[in-house]
Amino acid sequence: MKYCSLLLACCSLLFVNSNALSAEPRLVIHGGAGTIAKSDLTPKLEQAYLDQLKQALHVGYGVLENGGTSLDAVSAAVVVLEDSPLFNAGKGSSFSHEGRNELDASIMDGRDLSAGAVAGVRLVKNPIKLARTVMENSVHVMMAGSGAEAFARENALEMVEPDYFYTERRWQMLQRAKYPKEQTRIQPVAPLWEERKMGTVGAVAIDSEGNLAAATSTGGMTNKRYQRIGDSPIIGAGTYADNASCAVSATGHGEYFIRANVAHDICARLMYKKIPLQQAADEVIQQKLVSMGAKGGIIAIDNSGEVVMNFNTTGMYRGKIGPDGLEVAVYGEKAVISGE
Amino acid sequence: MKYCSLLLACCSLLFVNSNALSAEPRLVIHGGAGTIAKSDLTPKLEQAYLDQLKQALHVGYGVLENGGTSLDAVSAAVVVLEDSPLFNAGKGSSFSHEGRNELDASIMDGRDLSAGAVAGVRLVKNPIKLARTVMENSVHVMMAGSGAEAFARENALEMVEPDYFYTERRWQMLQRAKYPKEQTRIQPVAPLWEERKMGTVGAVAIDSEGNLAAATSTGGMTNKRYQRIGDSPIIGAGTYADNASCAVSATGHGEYFIRANVAHDICARLMYKKIPLQQAADEVIQQKLVSMGAKGGIIAIDNSGEVVMNFNTTGMYRGKIGPDGLEVAVYGEKAVISGE
Repeated sequence: MKYCSLLLACCSLLFVNSNALSAEPRLVIHGGAGTIAKSDLTPKLEQAYLDQLKQALHVGYGVLENGGTSLDAVSAAVVVLEDSPLFNAGKGSSFSHEGRNELDASIMDGRDLSAGAVAGVRLVKNPIKLARTVMENSVHVMMAGSGAEAFARENALEMVEPDYFYTERRWQMLQRAKYPKEQTRIQPVAPLWEERKMGTVGAVAIDSEGNLAAATSTGGMTNKRYQRIGDSPIIGAGTYADNASCAVSATGHGEYFIRANVAHDICARLMYKKIPLQQAADEVIQQKLVSMGAKGGIIAIDNSGEVVMNFNTTGMYRGKIGPDGLEVAVYGEKAVISGE
Repeated sequence: MKYCSLLLACCSLLFVNSNALSAEPRLVIHGGAGTIAKSDLTPKLEQAYLDQLKQALHVGYGVLENGGTSLDAVSAAVVVLEDSPLFNAGKGSSFSHEGRNELDASIMDGRDLSAGAVAGVRLVKNPIKLARTVMENSVHVMMAGSGAEAFARENALEMVEPDYFYTERRWQMLQRAKYPKEQTRIQPVAPLWEERKMGTVGAVAIDSEGNLAAATSTGGMTNKRYQRIGDSPIIGAGTYADNASCAVSATGHGEYFIRANVAHDICARLMYKKIPLQQAADEVIQQKLVSMGAKGGIIAIDNSGEVVMNFNTTGMYRGKIGPDGLEVAVYGEKAVISGE
């Protein structure tokens, strides 16, 4: 009898260990945070955002369900959002002061902290693919401008003409930022206007082997000057992933997110303070950033599969998918659509 | 008698508090880490390095002694090191694969986490001054390339021709990196060769008001390509300062320092694990980085004035100055020169 109990205890221990080794895959995405009120979006535009978020979730989760890595899943999801003209990343990116699209992106693999990032690229269709190629095919972590583009060409990434990224509503947003007092030709772009400093897309995931990854991509701040670099391509600020703690992708007023080292700070609080992900995110997004006067949000997933979507703005385009279903949302109030 | 003891206790408490409010100013600098053996440097060259480190310490400490801020002190010390042809920053910077000098720098103010950074500038004499101007005169934290240079011109910073940065020995180092099998014209550059991935300068300081600041400047990795950005201009990786914890400036194989988020990670361990600065630096430099196969070091100072100079290479050009005197050193063994 004594030996039976011992055997049973051993078996249950083995069972727990085996469970810990094979995680349930999950994917979380965002499409930017901002002061988004329900009155800002037409029902049709709102539905378009939700549909696009769902598509990105399905594509990324398809990778995970087929046994793919979290790294593959976050890349695939971000490519969908980059290719959509709705979000400020890839096609549909914001314009700089000079009327150019200067794109930033970064990606990180929680298995070994390997990372790739690009800043200020103008001719690469999917900056997130370039960030990943920097990580995998170079000795560097970060490249910028025409140097990064030369590397993209050598690695046969898809190049586009600058006008590929053009969308009328982002162009109008630049006009409004540059000439705030003029009324001509300016369309109502309230939701875009309020998210002009924080339009970004991103994804975090855990795969069936329990590995974490994070990816972030952006067109940056509307009307930015001097080849400004925001938090999205900064490992530690806009993106961080470490299997020892969590994966984070941020969207917000990038200057503050760099100064607060947002993504790594959330992971550090998990590791060193040994607090839950929700509390770590609250401390950084709802307390530290708010005390700095900084707006934005994050999505995060920890190494136990816990998911957090946390923002101090009125809205954040966001969604998550896992064995328990799919959810997408825009506003702060629980305007959540489940299933499909 | 009882009341006397109580009074005495109160007095000593008051004394401690008053001490905590007005800190003793201290300044710490580095000029890069690497595999530096005593046989690599001629006595004359070694003395030149030590003299230059001393000069930077005196200039920076002069600022602190005159009641200046830690921000002014780290700027002044780094300018001296940038202006010296000995170190890989400003004049004497390493060359990129294309034979260009592409300079990076960043600075951070521990009072309010404000920060400035520039990457890939070619025509600005003192990148650290530009980083500070970005912090103080723009809404951005980080600028790159010709955009950053346009901002420099608008702010009347001193511009130079590209050949200002040229030094023969850094040029020879590029030749050796590009054509490792050729023997022609290659001078013995062993100490430089070994520090080719980690030549950097930096400073951290605490001023009489207890405020912390950090600054880092570099020419980057010899033979770098594709407008590579290393850790020096990355807030959180190469530079971090927070009055709540510490100020850190790093020098090492930048790619690893970005992935490990070195500067902020040391501050985070101080804050969240509540361990001493020496232990936090050991955990990151001697354990985490070593386990990743990454070489380099840091200088740091915490908000109680505790100083740490920590490296996992055989040498790091470094020095510190405070009320208890001046020390400069190059090698790992205690080759320290005190006083002057």
